[in-house]
Amino acid sequence: MNENFQKLEEYLEPVQALQTALTLFQWDNETLAPEAANAQSSRMVGALSAAYLEAFLKPEIRQLLEKLTAEKDALSEKERAVVRELNRDYEQLEVIPKDEYRAFQELTMKAAVVWAKAREEDDFASFAPYLKEIVETQKRFAGYRRKEGQSLYDVLLSDYEPDFTEKDLDEFFAALREGLVPLVKEMAAKADSIPDSFLYKNYPADQQREFCEMLAYYIGFEKEKGVIAESAHPFTTNLHNKDVRITNHFYEDSLPSAMFSVIHEGGHGIYELGIADELTQTPIGGGATMAMHESQSRFYENILGRSEAFWKPLYPKLLALYPEQLAGISLEAFIKAINKSQPSLIRTEADELTYCLHIMVRYELEKLLIRGELAVEDLPRAWKDKCREYLGIAPDTDREGVLQDTHWAWGNFGYFPSYAIGSAIGAQLLCAMKKEINVDACLEASDLTAIKKYLGKNIHRYGKLYGCNELLVKTTGEKFNAHYFIEYLKEKYHRLYA
Amino acid sequence: MNENFQKLEEYLEPVQALQTALTLFQWDNETLAPEAANAQSSRMVGALSAAYLEAFLKPEIRQLLEKLTAEKDALSEKERAVVRELNRDYEQLEVIPKDEYRAFQELTMKAAVVWAKAREEDDFASFAPYLKEIVETQKRFAGYRRKEGQSLYDVLLSDYEPDFTEKDLDEFFAALREGLVPLVKEMAAKADSIPDSFLYKNYPADQQREFCEMLAYYIGFEKEKGVIAESAHPFTTNLHNKDVRITNHFYEDSLPSAMFSVIHEGGHGIYELGIADELTQTPIGGGATMAMHESQSRFYENILGRSEAFWKPLYPKLLALYPEQLAGISLEAFIKAINKSQPSLIRTEADELTYCLHIMVRYELEKLLIRGELAVEDLPRAWKDKCREYLGIAPDTDREGVLQDTHWAWGNFGYFPSYAIGSAIGAQLLCAMKKEINVDACLEASDLTAIKKYLGKNIHRYGKLYGCNELLVKTTGEKFNAHYFIEYLKEKYHRLYA
Repeated sequence: MNENFQKLEEYLEPVQALQTALTLFQWDNETLAPEAANAQSSRMVGALSAAYLEAFLKPEIRQLLEKLTAEKDALSEKERAVVRELNRDYEQLEVIPKDEYRAFQELTMKAAVVWAKAREEDDFASFAPYLKEIVETQKRFAGYRRKEGQSLYDVLLSDYEPDFTEKDLDEFFAALREGLVPLVKEMAAKADSIPDSFLYKNYPADQQREFCEMLAYYIGFEKEKGVIAESAHPFTTNLHNKDVRITNHFYEDSLPSAMFSVIHEGGHGIYELGIADELTQTPIGGGATMAMHESQSRFYENILGRSEAFWKPLYPKLLALYPEQLAGISLEAFIKAINKSQPSLIRTEADELTYCLHIMVRYELEKLLIRGELAVEDLPRAWKDKCREYLGIAPDTDREGVLQDTHWAWGNFGYFPSYAIGSAIGAQLLCAMKKEINVDACLEASDLTAIKKYLGKNIHRYGKLYGCNELLVKTTGEKFNAHYFIEYLKEKYHRLYA
Repeated sequence: MNENFQKLEEYLEPVQALQTALTLFQWDNETLAPEAANAQSSRMVGALSAAYLEAFLKPEIRQLLEKLTAEKDALSEKERAVVRELNRDYEQLEVIPKDEYRAFQELTMKAAVVWAKAREEDDFASFAPYLKEIVETQKRFAGYRRKEGQSLYDVLLSDYEPDFTEKDLDEFFAALREGLVPLVKEMAAKADSIPDSFLYKNYPADQQREFCEMLAYYIGFEKEKGVIAESAHPFTTNLHNKDVRITNHFYEDSLPSAMFSVIHEGGHGIYELGIADELTQTPIGGGATMAMHESQSRFYENILGRSEAFWKPLYPKLLALYPEQLAGISLEAFIKAINKSQPSLIRTEADELTYCLHIMVRYELEKLLIRGELAVEDLPRAWKDKCREYLGIAPDTDREGVLQDTHWAWGNFGYFPSYAIGSAIGAQLLCAMKKEINVDACLEASDLTAIKKYLGKNIHRYGKLYGCNELLVKTTGEKFNAHYFIEYLKEKYHRLYA
């Protein structure tokens, strides 16, 4: 191993440990910590973030990075990738004053709690001042980091998708609009003829909990390296590749919600569990990009989890668990119901086809917020307008509107597009996977091992060693291409609702 | 506020945050983390401990402490206490080489997992090498810190009870032996005539969980600032005075075990919740000493929790929950059963009267281990011999013997005596409390507020502002005095089993 790289690794050890501690605090805050703890714990998380920054921004690390960048050609592939990621992080962090960074960490920790309460009470006004400060801070931070030719939004986007710019996204969403809007309308017209009310009978939380736990392990989440808990909004986090955690939530009046949430988060979890041992707890020890992460979760949730082959062996178990609620419902009727497409209000509950329209709403609005062309006060109204424009319906409450997602409360602008990119990547991967594996046969045989292995071998194990497009070229032979996704949806929806 | 003290507080902020992060990792490790995570997480905890030490041993803190010690008379009481505690910690830490300290943190984190498995499988041999290394390390560390006239064991003891030496304890335990052994024998002779088998029928875990949660809040644990979880061995921890956490465990063949565990841990929790806001998250923001902590937990568990007045309003609820298991059992018979005294093997399940004999076994053995007069290999046999000597019975397995407690696996030598001192303090406090409050009337009225307030006002709010004997003098008018405990037990046991 390169001598300087070895020294770098020693300096990185406390950095990684502090980052992991921050992850654990966030997990704990969302799943377990008492409400009254927030103010005091936020201060502590602020102090830890400062300690993290101090450890990371040590002059010794900067010097080693400079040396390692100069001798790049002598480094191994892994070493080069670590240096690349660190240089990217350094660029981002060095320009943000330490106290501002810390204040922002404290702000979002508080804002997340305020948001949760505001959502519960449908009270946007109480959250607005926090959101305003978050937007202003993110704009200021992006300004510190902006390079020539970049928009402020490009800067934010690059934190999640370095391979994509605002321009790329405008094109991508235009292609989706063109390819999908006719299909969305076609399906919406049929929606009334597809019965799905049986999915929204009373499904006791305890039974849901049990079935969802089974589902997590069925698709490949691992008990001895995993934790499943509950939180307001399902999410996945990990301390390292031997400690991956997913959460779920249970609505007693909805069968699909928790079921598809656990398959979704399970997909994220399987990615993190699959990162190679030599990469975990290094700067390249996470998923390649947010979109690549979403491609895995949505691949499991939609491409596998909503297919007939997936449910063929599982549906009898579901019937046995809910004999009354699902009385007389055939597998075919169940599959039609869980794929039923119609305009709706809540992103996380949206069907596979209209989902990207929800993302478009957020993409358009956050671009405007960051450009300063939309004031936070006007956001609820703008939200409703955009919904009406893209989905044809609008929410009566902010709770079902602008307050439904946690992302902005955590300061995550430029994140939402990853969901749509990820959905599209999933279809591109499916096409390549099918050349090697009979996916439906695996699902029908209740054996998802070959699928997990394929994704592990081509995507998971590499962590951030390669970028999004590099991984796609290696695996599918070409860069990101939205065509596969549009074709996949057309084929699927026309087949199901012929 | 003193200017130097203000500077000190700034330096202490990351120190406190890192300590809290370590606490959170330990909590998580014991309650939730997946088994496979241990090796990787131990390394991280090691790195965090090192970062903690580095932040704490900054030359700037050392210099500020020197200045503040010199200008002691100009400081407030709180500032003086903080400086006193920090000087004590500094003395302990400065002499231990950083890498040795870190290796020890990693060792105990691993040892705790090995111990849990060894206990489960009754396999002392697998734990022995870890324990050996822990003993050797603690002896070495104590050697670094020893002052003239101190034994190695005195040094370890001073971490928990600065007011007590080995000599004090020899006297204390001699007094207990003299005062209690005749009573223990008298009660053991009566034990067969006291029915208690109804306590060990089948008590489903779900019902226990529900009743124990109710008990925790009934005695004064606070929902909005507290968490209740499960772990192999019940314990209490806290991030600060707005986030206090207790755990419990459930045995379906025992009613008292979980019930008295939750009252015990609840007592610890109430102490931590009662620390003043201006002290929490400072070096004097915890309980005064381990014994003072145990005095609170055992006060709630035994003095309140095993009294007839406590159960008068609660027993009907218990009867309603377990109508079959407790059919025909009067309140009087229940009280006799939960106080029944007889020699037994497991410390945490021992009755109030024989409990201190269990502590004597551990006290004698750990003194020998630290003196080098007993080898770890010989510990299982020595344990059985000591049990036979003090309790008249000995375990067949190590699982019910030397492997039953987690303390040594965590490196805590000199800790066990605190349980016995704490038990005795409880009786001393009761005597003083009764001069101001009609304790039984409060319990019978299901209103423990006055009791919690009394303890809050006299003990809890002060944190580590005062030492153990200082608090006792303030509250009871005299220093620690074992006499109250012996008299309390004589009166109680003769009254109950006349």
